Amino acid sequence: METMRLELIQTEQDLGKGIHILGDFYDVKGGFNEMIDSLKLESFCEEKVAEVGLTQVGKLFYQFPGSGVTGVILLAESHVAIHTWPEKNYLTLDIYVCNVSQTNTEKAKRLYDYFYELFQPGRVNRQDVDRE
Amino acid sequence: METMRLELIQTEQDLGKGIHILGDFYDVKGGFNEMIDSLKLESFCEEKVAEVGLTQVGKLFYQFPGSGVTGVILLAESHVAIHTWPEKNYLTLDIYVCNVSQTNTEKAKRLYDYFYELFQPGRVNRQDVDRE
Repeated sequence: METMRLELIQTEQDLGKGIHILGDFYDVKGGFNEMIDSLKLESFCEEKVAEVGLTQVGKLFYQFPGSGVTGVILLAESHVAIHTWPEKNYLTLDIYVCNVSQTNTEKAKRLYDYFYELFQPGRVNRQDVDRE
Repeated sequence: METMRLELIQTEQDLGKGIHILGDFYDVKGGFNEMIDSLKLESFCEEKVAEVGLTQVGKLFYQFPGSGVTGVILLAESHVAIHTWPEKNYLTLDIYVCNVSQTNTEKAKRLYDYFYELFQPGRVNRQDVDRE
């Protein structure tokens, strides 16, 4: 019985750890329409969030006139945020998921890969930060 | 003339560095109303963003029924995001500002201090990440 209890505690601790992926994409070679058009970027984000099985609770995208886009999808599991600078071929991406009720780390990583495939950055600064 | 040109380049590089403060607040001892009420948390965030001189371009807050709040203020300078878990006396805060047209790092740090003063966390995990 003691062993089972310890295993349960271990599992709860694992679930508590979330992940925040900070991805800075330089020299992007794709996704140029999404870089400059808030509606296109919003569609892409919503579609991929649903595809990996994360739960959207809200969205907000802002178009800088004649320039980039800034936007966020609020999730039951935390958030996805993206800011584009088309004049620099540069964008920053945040994918932050908590693991309170289930492990969402793999979903976050799959979502990151979708952004990577779309924008095809020539150089990336990626940091994966452990977080609740 | 050559010296002046070099100084200009240096200044542009400095401005390019933004900051992303990731603050995880444990064992909070204040701000209990803001932890559970999306309208109160939204008001606090909007007021303090304006007070430090950052530029709000949108906001979105979501109330988890009978539980915490998840919300974001989109800024011309990037974003502020907050997620609360009142049942754990825990919240996570993101303050991310770019420094494209002016240095906003001090504003970000002052904003962080406002959240710290409100929530009075017993323990903090803070990470300041350099970012464009």
